[in-house]
Amino acid sequence: MKAIGNDPLLTDLYQLSMLQGYLEQGMEEVAVFEFFVRKLPPERRFLLAAGLEQVLDYLLNLSFSTDDLAWLEASGRFSPALIAYLQDFRFTGDVHAMPEGTLFFADEPILRITAPLPQAQLVESRVINLLHYQTLVASKAARCVLAAPEKLLVDFGMRRAHGSEAALLAARACYIAGFAGTSTVSAAPSFDIPVFGTMAHSFVQSHDDESQAFEHFAHTQPDNVVLLIDTYDTERAAEYVVERVAPRLRRAGIRIKAVRLDSGDLAMHARKVRRILDEGGCPEIRIFVSGNLDEYELQSLLGKEAPIDGFGIGTRLTTSADAPYLDCAYKLQEYAGRPRRKKSEGKATWPGRKQVFRRFDETGKLAGDTLALEDDRQDGQPLIQQVMRGGELLYARKDLEAIRLYAQNQLAGLPSTLRCSEGRHTYEAEVSPALEALARKIDSARTV
Amino acid sequence: MKAIGNDPLLTDLYQLSMLQGYLEQGMEEVAVFEFFVRKLPPERRFLLAAGLEQVLDYLLNLSFSTDDLAWLEASGRFSPALIAYLQDFRFTGDVHAMPEGTLFFADEPILRITAPLPQAQLVESRVINLLHYQTLVASKAARCVLAAPEKLLVDFGMRRAHGSEAALLAARACYIAGFAGTSTVSAAPSFDIPVFGTMAHSFVQSHDDESQAFEHFAHTQPDNVVLLIDTYDTERAAEYVVERVAPRLRRAGIRIKAVRLDSGDLAMHARKVRRILDEGGCPEIRIFVSGNLDEYELQSLLGKEAPIDGFGIGTRLTTSADAPYLDCAYKLQEYAGRPRRKKSEGKATWPGRKQVFRRFDETGKLAGDTLALEDDRQDGQPLIQQVMRGGELLYARKDLEAIRLYAQNQLAGLPSTLRCSEGRHTYEAEVSPALEALARKIDSARTV
Repeated sequence: MKAIGNDPLLTDLYQLSMLQGYLEQGMEEVAVFEFFVRKLPPERRFLLAAGLEQVLDYLLNLSFSTDDLAWLEASGRFSPALIAYLQDFRFTGDVHAMPEGTLFFADEPILRITAPLPQAQLVESRVINLLHYQTLVASKAARCVLAAPEKLLVDFGMRRAHGSEAALLAARACYIAGFAGTSTVSAAPSFDIPVFGTMAHSFVQSHDDESQAFEHFAHTQPDNVVLLIDTYDTERAAEYVVERVAPRLRRAGIRIKAVRLDSGDLAMHARKVRRILDEGGCPEIRIFVSGNLDEYELQSLLGKEAPIDGFGIGTRLTTSADAPYLDCAYKLQEYAGRPRRKKSEGKATWPGRKQVFRRFDETGKLAGDTLALEDDRQDGQPLIQQVMRGGELLYARKDLEAIRLYAQNQLAGLPSTLRCSEGRHTYEAEVSPALEALARKIDSARTV
Repeated sequence: MKAIGNDPLLTDLYQLSMLQGYLEQGMEEVAVFEFFVRKLPPERRFLLAAGLEQVLDYLLNLSFSTDDLAWLEASGRFSPALIAYLQDFRFTGDVHAMPEGTLFFADEPILRITAPLPQAQLVESRVINLLHYQTLVASKAARCVLAAPEKLLVDFGMRRAHGSEAALLAARACYIAGFAGTSTVSAAPSFDIPVFGTMAHSFVQSHDDESQAFEHFAHTQPDNVVLLIDTYDTERAAEYVVERVAPRLRRAGIRIKAVRLDSGDLAMHARKVRRILDEGGCPEIRIFVSGNLDEYELQSLLGKEAPIDGFGIGTRLTTSADAPYLDCAYKLQEYAGRPRRKKSEGKATWPGRKQVFRRFDETGKLAGDTLALEDDRQDGQPLIQQVMRGGELLYARKDLEAIRLYAQNQLAGLPSTLRCSEGRHTYEAEVSPALEALARKIDSARTV
């Protein structure tokens, strides 16, 4: 099943205008662009790379249909030469990247595209769009995983994610970061991600009697009985569960897996409900909570030792609400064999084809990164690998489980100062002397 | 051209579980659900309704393909009765709504769905997903329009919007709110929205000489010459424009429309550049700026009387960065002829089928809303109209221009206290006595 579509016209107009300019000037030599984040949001200590597989799909399949070409022509904005060029368009470049699930930091490229200038330029907008969002959500989800290790975490954020693609890709990004799964059904056929679900308040409300709603639901989903108990009065509903519902279901051979709380003071209610369940002879029923959760809430709830077994995390996760975007860029670093550098205030870039070398301490924790030119070998492990050559994939596609496992190993390497939300600790790559020298050389040589 | 796709499996798992429960219990009587925002974000004084057309498209076309059904069956989670029900699924309900572009406030429903319970339940997740995002962005865009009246505003936010659908629908929402257009190409074939574009830093960098890059671009896009002048040194580039580029282009019959600034202190650079252009004999060249803009920045720049003619507004707009989600809900208000009410702490809802009646003062400004039961006629104009009956549209689809014009009229009716970002003014609907009484009656009558 095709997970996401790719409309070649989902791009910024200026890409097509510039393309036409490049073609008219015969500027089709090799260009090198890199994608990186300039500066982490103040709320983030690390980022987790995600979205590469969708970028590769996009590059492998990018082409213009007859309808697309007809629209471009009818718009009157473009030359016949551009239309002819797009008619035969295929991406034939190289791609180097950090594997999905890799930890990365400011100024470290996670993707490099090396291709004739018009190709490398055309793909900019969608490459950013794909890498930005999944990286944003994977990074937020990883913080939730670190805040609540050993807990069941489920993505509940489809409804308020920004559109359908965000909903679907958020499920993927959360799973990579270590979530158990998602409530978004289409994530299962698209990516083989486990799906979870309970019941809504409307199910309870549409019944005249809450206990009856619970029993109906249990008979319908006997293997997955999670009862939502906060529609009217949480503790009273918990009492009805132990007094009436659980005994009747037990006789029918049905086990209640969990109750869900979705409102009010979750720590307080969880404690009261835990006591009611335990004292009512239902210690096996687990407590699952949802409602305005994020890593800060998880930390707070678990800090209070609230007896909670699992969390449904929604809106604040899939919108990355405390940091809803990254200051990322896809920048030209070399054209026609010459390194290039943008100098705009606050937005200067490191020129050339780069590699990130990462060192680890004896316990396996991150000990330092060096940003260097690709052929300027430094201490440490090079993080960027070639994944596409001449438009062809160089490796068998990884399954999501492998990416998820790799991400878990990456997170295990985070120093404790970068794991938590508090503090102003940062981790920044050193810049190699040769790269510093190259940047200086370009600045002094450039003439306007 | 089909603007957006609708995967029927893009829903929360619990919708399908509950559906199965409803079918097993024969609970197929008429349910009434309403979509509303519980509480506006502290950063918002009003919201602008958007997304209805996409909801109607979704409802008109919702069906399950053979592949969808095969996947549901193979998942082993669902009964043959549910699969059979979905196989023939068609939405046959009624829809009432506020027109797109209507101003609305907390607790005021902008959509009501009246349909057999399984149908009204199934559509919940995607209905929220569609209304939430466009309303979010239209509201943010409207604030930009109010902050910079008479200025050219263009949506530049595709690349960091959360996925492809968000990018496309943001362009639509911004246009409704009064933007001149978007840089997202696919918004033109999809919605007939004007597209705008300039050039990127990479275009300048890939040339060895900045002035040459400007001339090449101008010859390629002679009708739309907007030159990006901040790649290296903004004022020097402006000087080259007046000294070298403009005279040469003038001889070739090409007019420079504008220069674009994208970094640094935009007010300061705009003032310097304006002086250089005016003193260099180019008073007709306009100044367009971009880079980390939103309504607060627009207010600040225009407050400083920066000589800026147009703004490209990107990431903070399409992610609604200061308020990246709305506390919205789609709640059961009536089932089988009986009004229903959820009581969860902080999430209680007003029961029944509701209408919003709006009063205006003698200058046409909003003077007060009343939230009432539909048949309890109040003073003022009823805002909610029926748009679908028995699954069929009741009206000819509005074109986007008409919606945009309507939204402009709506914004003109905003009292000055709600127009600006400052202050804590709020506008809240009064609740009619009959509705208050109904809520009390349900609370006292309900037995768990």
